[in-house]
Amino acid sequence: MKAITLAEYGGPEQMAWEDVPDPVPGPGEVVIDVVASAVNRADLLQVQGNYPVPPGASEILGLECSGRISALGEGVDGWSVGDEVCALLAGGGYAQKVAVPAPQLLPVPDGVSLEDAGGLPEVACTVWSNVFLEGRLAEDETFLVQGGSSGIGTHAIQIAKAFGARVAATVHPDRMQFCRELGADIVIDYHLDVAEELKKATDGHGADVILDNMGAKGLANNLSALARDGRLMIIGMQGGVKAELNIGALLAKRGHVSAMGLRGRPVKGPHSKAEIVLGVRENVWPLLSAGTVRPVVFERYPMSDAAGAHRRLAEGGVVGKLLLVNPDA
Amino acid sequence: MKAITLAEYGGPEQMAWEDVPDPVPGPGEVVIDVVASAVNRADLLQVQGNYPVPPGASEILGLECSGRISALGEGVDGWSVGDEVCALLAGGGYAQKVAVPAPQLLPVPDGVSLEDAGGLPEVACTVWSNVFLEGRLAEDETFLVQGGSSGIGTHAIQIAKAFGARVAATVHPDRMQFCRELGADIVIDYHLDVAEELKKATDGHGADVILDNMGAKGLANNLSALARDGRLMIIGMQGGVKAELNIGALLAKRGHVSAMGLRGRPVKGPHSKAEIVLGVRENVWPLLSAGTVRPVVFERYPMSDAAGAHRRLAEGGVVGKLLLVNPDA
Repeated sequence: MKAITLAEYGGPEQMAWEDVPDPVPGPGEVVIDVVASAVNRADLLQVQGNYPVPPGASEILGLECSGRISALGEGVDGWSVGDEVCALLAGGGYAQKVAVPAPQLLPVPDGVSLEDAGGLPEVACTVWSNVFLEGRLAEDETFLVQGGSSGIGTHAIQIAKAFGARVAATVHPDRMQFCRELGADIVIDYHLDVAEELKKATDGHGADVILDNMGAKGLANNLSALARDGRLMIIGMQGGVKAELNIGALLAKRGHVSAMGLRGRPVKGPHSKAEIVLGVRENVWPLLSAGTVRPVVFERYPMSDAAGAHRRLAEGGVVGKLLLVNPDA
Repeated sequence: MKAITLAEYGGPEQMAWEDVPDPVPGPGEVVIDVVASAVNRADLLQVQGNYPVPPGASEILGLECSGRISALGEGVDGWSVGDEVCALLAGGGYAQKVAVPAPQLLPVPDGVSLEDAGGLPEVACTVWSNVFLEGRLAEDETFLVQGGSSGIGTHAIQIAKAFGARVAATVHPDRMQFCRELGADIVIDYHLDVAEELKKATDGHGADVILDNMGAKGLANNLSALARDGRLMIIGMQGGVKAELNIGALLAKRGHVSAMGLRGRPVKGPHSKAEIVLGVRENVWPLLSAGTVRPVVFERYPMSDAAGAHRRLAEGGVVGKLLLVNPDA
């Protein structure tokens, strides 16, 4: 098969579309003939050498995909060759084929094209695990998503709204209207003091749950924006790794700070990918099938031009997901 | 009635046993004739002026007590004058009488003396809310309590053990044997590198839940001691307020950092004292009644000598609780 390979760590110029060995399904795995994958910010870090591949995972880029099952490993139940699926991957999505443990498979939601489904697993699993499973966002609580026009942001706004939360999003002024159309009740220009703007808009309450991709740079303002008993969920460190934590301020709010990813989780058991994928299937997929939540795709690139998509994401201004499509799949 | 009053902020020398007006029960409150209260570290901070009294709470010291109900406010159901009770207080325990909202009352567990019950509500509610309600400690998980011989520590060791956790405690070398007798499986001299010692003793696993009273000083080592998906619960800041948080290290562990207290919580509703007290009554009280968990009382002082008890706690080396007793109650 062909896949995107990296000559060495660096930038998109290191990426090539080359022949590599086909994956073989291990016990409990299936092979998917990939129709689409999607670009995640973690992929850019991986190209730079700043996101080590977890032990046992494919060295090939790509944390999600959609496609058709073309082979079943030993002991796989409930899935058949030919099934149209999408999947959360530990790697390997930027290719014509990928092997994946069956508990990481999801059906394609009704009304969503097989191609668009390739950009759903990462956002759906990230938002479900952070905002709902761990962050326990409840109806009528206030939810703030940093970066409301990103892939994560566009999904988080819709899903939190569908579950009855009051939704706030930070975003570039150019994309405020778009976030409102997705369902955001409060839209804040990210150049402003976000905590102050949010408190103004919520009678001083702040956010019960915050989904943050900035890490260090946002920490103090996020703590300030947090409501009593609030949960700050950090999923990215675009603003750095280390920051001062004011434990007194956290204690005064009875606050919680969590930082989590999907990729290093075990396939099965407590805190596993299987647990999250099941939660997504039961809670999020019905909303996609009903059309309440929809995939937001910005642009589509041929898989062989993954480098072009990486350059585009790095440029900024992408709203939703960039898909990588295998044209002949 | 008589109560401990503070001439001004400072040290124990500011405390006096003086006549003050009797409390009157508001709607939903009862008045308790206090048999015993107990000293908490927060009381020492309050004397220094470093722990502001929450709005509406008594200015008198004292976060817990036991005694007999002597008056009922409007709308109190399920309690009668003469009932022997203990209670979680927002303040006012260092006195002959105190008014308290009924949802903060607990019966005296079978087999526990009315006097000893005066030192139970704070430790039981703190440990239940942090380790179980929020920290979600599960059977067979590893639990680390910092300061195993403190009031909190001696209770936490017993209760975590009773719920089937593997229990580790840090403690001064003189008090290691005592912590083992309470049920600690792993006892660590707190002068050592606690994370390293804990990992040695747990095949590298670390702690699924940590209960910490040091705050800033302990943060980095606590994060190092944390297991994957671990929860660090901070309840005190004896080691300072501000520390660097390595978000990358937290994310690599999918870790959680929470900081919480009891005093500022609402009486009823989500995250309330009522919710915690009910959880304690249902889950912790049966273990006290069965004798599986016992109160650990170090010394008893006449209430009028609260200053002596404060000096004793500040000196260090106290194992369990210091009670303040009204001799004629």
